[in-house]
Amino acid sequence: MVVPVSAVNGGARPAAGRTADDLRRDNLALLMGLVHHSGGLSRAELTRRTGLNRSTVGACLADLAALGLVVEGQPEASPRKGRPSPVFQPSPDTVAVTVNPEVDALTIGLVGLGGRVLERWRIEISAGLTAGDVVTRSAAAIRALLAGRSLAVAGVAIAVPGQVRQRDGQVRDAVHLGWREEPLAARLAEATGLPTRAANAASLGMTGESAFGAGRGVDDLVYFIGGASGIGGGVISGGRVVRGASGYGGELGHFMVRGGGRTCPCGARGCLEIEVTQHELLDAVGLAAHRADRLDEALAATRDAAVLDVVRRDLDLLGIAVRNAVNVFNPRLVVLGGFLAALYRNRPDDAVLAGDAIRSSRESLTIATAELGADQLTIGTAELAFSDLLTDPAGHTPTRTGPTAP
Amino acid sequence: MVVPVSAVNGGARPAAGRTADDLRRDNLALLMGLVHHSGGLSRAELTRRTGLNRSTVGACLADLAALGLVVEGQPEASPRKGRPSPVFQPSPDTVAVTVNPEVDALTIGLVGLGGRVLERWRIEISAGLTAGDVVTRSAAAIRALLAGRSLAVAGVAIAVPGQVRQRDGQVRDAVHLGWREEPLAARLAEATGLPTRAANAASLGMTGESAFGAGRGVDDLVYFIGGASGIGGGVISGGRVVRGASGYGGELGHFMVRGGGRTCPCGARGCLEIEVTQHELLDAVGLAAHRADRLDEALAATRDAAVLDVVRRDLDLLGIAVRNAVNVFNPRLVVLGGFLAALYRNRPDDAVLAGDAIRSSRESLTIATAELGADQLTIGTAELAFSDLLTDPAGHTPTRTGPTAP
Repeated sequence: MVVPVSAVNGGARPAAGRTADDLRRDNLALLMGLVHHSGGLSRAELTRRTGLNRSTVGACLADLAALGLVVEGQPEASPRKGRPSPVFQPSPDTVAVTVNPEVDALTIGLVGLGGRVLERWRIEISAGLTAGDVVTRSAAAIRALLAGRSLAVAGVAIAVPGQVRQRDGQVRDAVHLGWREEPLAARLAEATGLPTRAANAASLGMTGESAFGAGRGVDDLVYFIGGASGIGGGVISGGRVVRGASGYGGELGHFMVRGGGRTCPCGARGCLEIEVTQHELLDAVGLAAHRADRLDEALAATRDAAVLDVVRRDLDLLGIAVRNAVNVFNPRLVVLGGFLAALYRNRPDDAVLAGDAIRSSRESLTIATAELGADQLTIGTAELAFSDLLTDPAGHTPTRTGPTAP
Repeated sequence: MVVPVSAVNGGARPAAGRTADDLRRDNLALLMGLVHHSGGLSRAELTRRTGLNRSTVGACLADLAALGLVVEGQPEASPRKGRPSPVFQPSPDTVAVTVNPEVDALTIGLVGLGGRVLERWRIEISAGLTAGDVVTRSAAAIRALLAGRSLAVAGVAIAVPGQVRQRDGQVRDAVHLGWREEPLAARLAEATGLPTRAANAASLGMTGESAFGAGRGVDDLVYFIGGASGIGGGVISGGRVVRGASGYGGELGHFMVRGGGRTCPCGARGCLEIEVTQHELLDAVGLAAHRADRLDEALAATRDAAVLDVVRRDLDLLGIAVRNAVNVFNPRLVVLGGFLAALYRNRPDDAVLAGDAIRSSRESLTIATAELGADQLTIGTAELAFSDLLTDPAGHTPTRTGPTAP
């Protein structure tokens, strides 16, 4: 249920009253979201889940079909007598394009409604890319990717390892890429002619796990992801992403976990992401920096006391960050991804990650590892590209591509 | 604006579609909230702020007047020609009752719509109260408070220094009161016959500041309040209180700020609230434990190096908690209350509270002190008691009291 305005919310000050147009938009968005996130549901099930009457649901689905956003599939075999209910699926030719610049690669993805990763181009790079390089190469790759296909492109989204301003997709700081104040979304939009958004990569990874992975159906979750360039995070509270005033919220890698600790690239000392690093863990188990894919296996196999010391120290420090997060967010679920998942899966028998959190907040808490693997970031980034379409299906016009290129 | 359902929200999964009844309820709630939080607005201004058409606003206001929730006051003098627009104010006889048990006192409040504190009874206690005592004495005091008055009582709310389950107002832990698993709201409801809710006191203090104090109109704020029994907190993100899965969110006093620090009553080590205490600060300036009201003045007057060392250490530790909060919530505003406000107002020239936070999150941040003083908690608790009325004005029936007692 969309939570009604309430004084207890304190700050929930809607800027506008609601009209019948808002009502229709919200119901279209609700049905579109259900079809998209489920991959397909019968009309009977959609009626049940929305609590709307059958004729309203039928009219909305007809609207979505006319917009080309859903298609009617084979009816569901009914266990009971009576006519089977028609099934509605996301349109197979409505897609999003994703872009993810990293230190050593630029990845372009094509994702269909329903979270289906259709194609992924990984462009490996020896030297670091400037923001300008990313725009030029992404635009060329997107052109090539879409050429000759008949698709409805909902939009483009860029996952950036850094702080991104929500309003306009300006990259404020991407320390690991060496970028500062880059109007990345605006420049890529200009280069492709496609509507383009950008956001923090860790937050988009969380969006992927929330929509299609370990966090499905969970309204209060905290997500930590560890990789070569540090630890990112994201939070969903009461069913909504904690973005903050400008979109920089969710920097869980910058919880202080060790007083007087190492100096972090952010300028502060003792941040989680500078105290607990993938690099040190790979070193400890004797793996090269690019073999993070073998970390889980290496940790499972080791009996080396020095390695186990590193694991225990890392889990202790991660435990402080998890405790902070559980105390302030009271989540139902903590999801760990990347090398933090490997750490957690190979924890010593007596390691308890949220044992120091406040009793009432930890008692119904589950800790889980991410489920979507390499697809996580691509799928989550596509969610951002689909967001206008999913918020206002009738108000959004995807860009049609044809056999003669976009 | 009520944020529409969006896939980017990840977890924003509305349980139900929307009908015309929801629309009417939301618009009534919107107008009721505007009248309540402003203390009174002209119909023209309400039309402007809601973006609804004049006839819809007029019909809604007529409904609210018929429900006895708003009254038409003197028309606003118009600077322009034409008829002055009628002003609508909150009904003066619609009230909420507040209850706040503390270690040394039980405070009962009577608050009108518009956040007007009408009366406050402070019952001082030599020995600690059990939850049963609080129910018995509160019920008696409420009966006496309402006796012989003609009022519409929206409800009762209890502010508890501890973790309270949102669903049913069960006190899970109130360490400073020595309570555990007390069904406080249910028992007081039974004793008074009035609808009763309970929540964490610090979170309700924040609600007061958000609705009527330093946080008015701010959709992203973080609040720290320090008192005799520790440090509490609360967060508003995107216009909504961060409650978490069960209502225990916002425990900012339990950020880890010193590794291997003191053991906190919560069981963990180095929590903000055990490292930074009002007691030590009062001791340092030579004030008795009950003279916290003179702390601000004493800190302003002191030149004692030992005191300034305590102030600096406390600000450093508070700074770690503020940095954590700014990094994860990206608030527009941090509000400090109680002895933390005194600390902040008397900070050394070079103390910068959020200087270690991530650049993009701190650049548009303001740090302020709480404005409502002693009324803060009473007003915020009343917001909880008013919440059903404010969420669904037409669906809520206040309890009428008359000259023959409730």
